[in-house]
Parts: sequence; C-alpha cells; structure tokens
Amino acid sequence: MAEVRLTQTVQKGGCAAKVAAQELRKILAQVQFPPNDERVMVDGGLFDDAAIYRVSEDVALVQTLDFFTPIVDTPALFGRIAAANALSDVYAMGGEPKTAMAILAFPLATLDNQVVVDVLQGASEAMGEAGVNFVGGHSIDDDTLKFGLSLTGFVHPKRVWSNSRARPGDCLILTKAVGTGTLTAGLKQGAWGEADIADALSSMGQVNRILDLLNAEEQTAIHSATDITGFGLAGHAMQMAQASKVSLALKYERLPFFQKTHQALQEGFLTRAHRTNKAYVQERCDFAQLSEVEALLLFDPQTSGGLLLSVAPDKEAAILSRLQTRFPAAAVIGTVESESGKDWRIV
Amino acid sequence: MAEVRLTQTVQKGGCAAKVAAQELRKILAQVQFPPNDERVMVDGGLFDDAAIYRVSEDVALVQTLDFFTPIVDTPALFGRIAAANALSDVYAMGGEPKTAMAILAFPLATLDNQVVVDVLQGASEAMGEAGVNFVGGHSIDDDTLKFGLSLTGFVHPKRVWSNSRARPGDCLILTKAVGTGTLTAGLKQGAWGEADIADALSSMGQVNRILDLLNAEEQTAIHSATDITGFGLAGHAMQMAQASKVSLALKYERLPFFQKTHQALQEGFLTRAHRTNKAYVQERCDFAQLSEVEALLLFDPQTSGGLLLSVAPDKEAAILSRLQTRFPAAAVIGTVESESGKDWRIV
Repeated sequence: MAEVRLTQTVQKGGCAAKVAAQELRKILAQVQFPPNDERVMVDGGLFDDAAIYRVSEDVALVQTLDFFTPIVDTPALFGRIAAANALSDVYAMGGEPKTAMAILAFPLATLDNQVVVDVLQGASEAMGEAGVNFVGGHSIDDDTLKFGLSLTGFVHPKRVWSNSRARPGDCLILTKAVGTGTLTAGLKQGAWGEADIADALSSMGQVNRILDLLNAEEQTAIHSATDITGFGLAGHAMQMAQASKVSLALKYERLPFFQKTHQALQEGFLTRAHRTNKAYVQERCDFAQLSEVEALLLFDPQTSGGLLLSVAPDKEAAILSRLQTRFPAAAVIGTVESESGKDWRIV
Repeated sequence: MAEVRLTQTVQKGGCAAKVAAQELRKILAQVQFPPNDERVMVDGGLFDDAAIYRVSEDVALVQTLDFFTPIVDTPALFGRIAAANALSDVYAMGGEPKTAMAILAFPLATLDNQVVVDVLQGASEAMGEAGVNFVGGHSIDDDTLKFGLSLTGFVHPKRVWSNSRARPGDCLILTKAVGTGTLTAGLKQGAWGEADIADALSSMGQVNRILDLLNAEEQTAIHSATDITGFGLAGHAMQMAQASKVSLALKYERLPFFQKTHQALQEGFLTRAHRTNKAYVQERCDFAQLSEVEALLLFDPQTSGGLLLSVAPDKEAAILSRLQTRFPAAAVIGTVESESGKDWRIV
C-alpha cells in the first residue's frame, strides 16, 4: 500500500478542527446540565482544561479528554503528539496521569490497519513516559482519522495548580518553544516535510511531565501554571493574568522558538487562530512595540505546547536548570507585576 | 431550518459503526502498550467493557468510554440513549458513575446548533438520573454527528461485579426487553417512525441503575452480571458461561421483547451483527429447537440493552419485584447449571 500522508487525508488538522470557543459557549449556555455535587472542585464543563473531583481528603481526580485529526504525516508521530497533548491538561493542574482510554475513529475502507497500529504505538510510547496505564477505549469506523485520549490522574486536593495564583514578583518560565501552529500549517500546505520541522515535532511529542524533576521545595515554589495550547501564549498568558489579578511583563527576545518559526510566520503560513487569538487579546494587552509579523509569534496556536509557570524568584534558577535537563528550550520569559492597565505587555 | 432526520445523516448507526472485534484485536495485538501497574484490577485494553483501577483499600475507579453515530432521529433521544449506553458499562461492573466527559463531533456547516443543544440536553437528563457530574469534554468539527461519554465511577474493590461468578443453581434475570437492533434497522430503513417503536426507544434511554433499588442482602445475592450490547443476548450469555465455567439454560418463551420485535425480525430488518453474532456462538451453544427467525432474537445486537444478572435463587423473587418497579420488562429468563457440552441451550 502506498505511503499515506496523514495531513492530506483531512480538511482541518489538530486544534484547528476544534469547535470555536464562542460557538461552543453559546451552545453550552442553552443546556441545563445536571447539578454538580460538592466533590467537583474544578468544573471543566466548558470543555476547556481539566476537571478536578475530590475522592477523599488526600486524593482528587484530574480528568480531561482531547482528540483531533492528524496534524503531521507520520502515524506514530501523530499518536505520540495526540497523547502528549491530552496529557498536558493533567500536568497543567499539577496532576500525575494514571489511566488512559483511547478515542479512535478511522476509515477502515481506505486506511491500512498498520496506520492504526502505528498511531497507537506512538501514543503508547508517550503514555509509557508518563507512567500511564492504558485501560481501554472505543473505536469507530469513520471517514477521517481521529485520535485522542480520555485521561484520569491524581492530585492532592490542596496541591492543585491553577492559573489564578501568579504573584507579583514571580518569574515566568515557559517549558517549550513556540511556533507549532505556523509550522504545521506549512507542513500541511506542502511547503516542507517533517524533517524540516523536526525540532517542533519532537517538542510536540514530549510529555509535559515536570514534577518528577523537582524537589518538594521547588514544587511548592510553582505558584501558578497553565499549558499553552489553542489560544497561543498571548491568550493563555492573558487568562493567567486575569485569573490571578496581576499583570505580566513579557520579554519578547527571551521567547523560545523553533528553527523555522520566524521564517514560517514571515512566509505567511497562518491559521484562523492567528487572527482570532489577536482579536481575543488586543484590547487587554500591549504589544505595540512589535511589528505585525513579530507579534504573530504570540498569537501562534500551540498543539501540545509548553507549560507557563509562575515561580517564586528565589527558586527560578534551580527550577529552570532542572527543567532544562528534559526541556532544553525552557526559558524565563518575563515577570509578574501588580495589576495595571494591561493584562500583559511586551518589555 | 428544516427538520433533520439524524439517522439519514449517517452511513452506519450506533454499535453497527463499531470496528469489528476481530479486526480490532488484530490491530491491538500488534501494539506494545506500556506495562500496567499493580492497581489495574480489570484491564479494558481490548476496548471492551469497563476497566477497574484501585485507588485505595475501599475505593476503585470504574472507567469506560463509548460514542457513536445517531441510531434515532430525534436529537434529544439520541443524546439520552448514547449516555445511557455508556453508563451501562459502569453499572454492569457494580459501579456508581460519578463523572462524565462528553465526546462530541458535529458538522458545524450543515447541522443547526440546536441539534447539539438537544443532544446534550438529552444526555444531561440521563446523567441527572444517574447522579453523574458533567465535568467536561471535547468537541470537534466533523462530517457526521457523533456523541458519547467518557465515564468514571466508584466501586468497592471487593464488590466489583464480573461475568465470571455465575453459580450453578442461580437464576438469570434480564432487566430490559430485546430487539433494539432489528427495530432501529427498521427505523433507519424508513419502515416506520419513532412513534412505532416508542417502547424500544424508551428502554434504550433508560439508565441501568439498579443498586439503589436493592438492600445490602439483595445486592450480595447478585453473583455475576454483564450488560447486553453488540454481541446480543447470545454472545454475552456465552461469555458469562465461559468466564464462569457454567452452562446456562435459557427459556425462550420467557425472553422479554418489544411490541414490534418479532415483526421486525420476520420482515428481515437485520444488521451485519445478526449474522456475525450467530457465527460467534453457533459451535458452543444449542438453539436447534428454534426456527431461524426465532433464533434471530438471541443474535439481535442491543444498544443500551439490559443487564443480565445471575442471582441466588432465594432472592430471585425479591430482586425481580424490586427491579420491575423501574424496569417493567425485567424477567427471569433461565437458570445456571453445571458446565456441560454447551455454553447455553434453549430449554
């Protein structure tokens, strides 16, 4: 059977196939959901991020679910990235993922079974690195390949991370480089092959596991966290600032990026999200000193992006050097300031 | 916007769109999954039934995931049935479902948002009856509507039900009537409308919650359980017999059915599963005394079918009468005997 380029089998890849947040909110607002019991600590009812459900005084579940169509051509890489992307929501809450169930849709008639084997194998490798048990799933015969995971992890109810506890004086660490949106757009449009964006593919395939790198003191020094996904650094940083009632000062020249990120943005490999993310933040954030192309880096939607951590300044160096042993692109990209006129600004 | 008949928007409805078990097994056999840790009590790695993961001495998670394309025309009914169907796997393990995440794919361009609102509303009603918290999900823009749930419930690790503990002398209780496969095939083929098969639709929409109807003694008297889904009564009864190392004596005339079940089978509204389920059981089971059409009742694939319970005979009457307060079709359909030449036979 001829080699299939997965990105050519779908209309919309990755997070671009997500239903737009506003559209979804309008729909969800019309539904009368059953009431939550008092154990629901964090409600992911808006289909965003993970939910937290308390089991006992010491244990809470962190639950999330994510799936999408191929954003890369190689099946094993797609499986790995889809798994890492889903796992990220659990890590962003400070959880340790423990069980995974697969969500699998594939065109039995047109796609070789080996593609599915490879997708699952790629995902299994990411799950293995995360220490996750693969406990089931569901598959369906469908027109286009889709894959993802439903995940459950554990977290101590008092050690749940949120994006609402960044404190003035904190340093901001980003664990992965930025640019997966523009680079995978270029891939899909045939501008280059996977080898050309290998650094981005490898980054997307890496699971955001960081707790095991840090000692207890360093873990406590992480005041707030979020993972960078569809809204880009711009959107998720704005959400953190608003939730924490602070302002962020971002150092543009410190932002980590992939080898071809700037070239891809300059050549105009853009997604709808580049536009909608700019619209989402432009009234509340200040990026006036950047050129239009420079600013696109902030709006670039990430698939399996890094964690943005707000950490106590006295632990910044220790945490950064530990993170860099696994995430070489990790960088301090700014600081947290008292609430001001803008949620974030470029300094 | 014109009324849409959901069954006409998809090629294959409900469990018929499932990837065939043998095909899936071949694929899964080639994947090297990460090793399970010792807390995995039941592995649903074959994408079948629920998995059990021990949290503590007193608490285990019951986890399952199911989604499919519309098998009925009315959106709210589809949502309700999809939710009840997914919940059933948790109930079949003796679990109490607690959290649900939605899996939602819908054609933004061709389907009115109201359809999605209605699907979610129907599912919410079933979740409400199950006492489940709706904690999140993921949605995707896709060519055909698909909906389902990822569920987590709790069960005491020592009170997990399985299909492997039926004992000779037990009575077999089935909680719902049989015939959803042939009836929904008739619906899809336009032979009749939803009003004609209202009893089957209502049954599929009912959640298999039974523990709250029974006292502790009655709960303990349920030795073994399974839910009747794609393999039909024939297939799931065979699995229970084999797992329990017993034989089942099934009384054909006691099987509960819907008003139009027999008519539908006689008129030949069949699915591929009617054939494959027969092939699955015919060497190991004895239904020689039934006509070909009669036997089809056993092979009929169920969506959101009933629970098959193997119960201590001294509690049969009490359990049955309590179940009938919520499941009027519940019936004693046979007995459990010592292992013999056949896994089940018609008596």
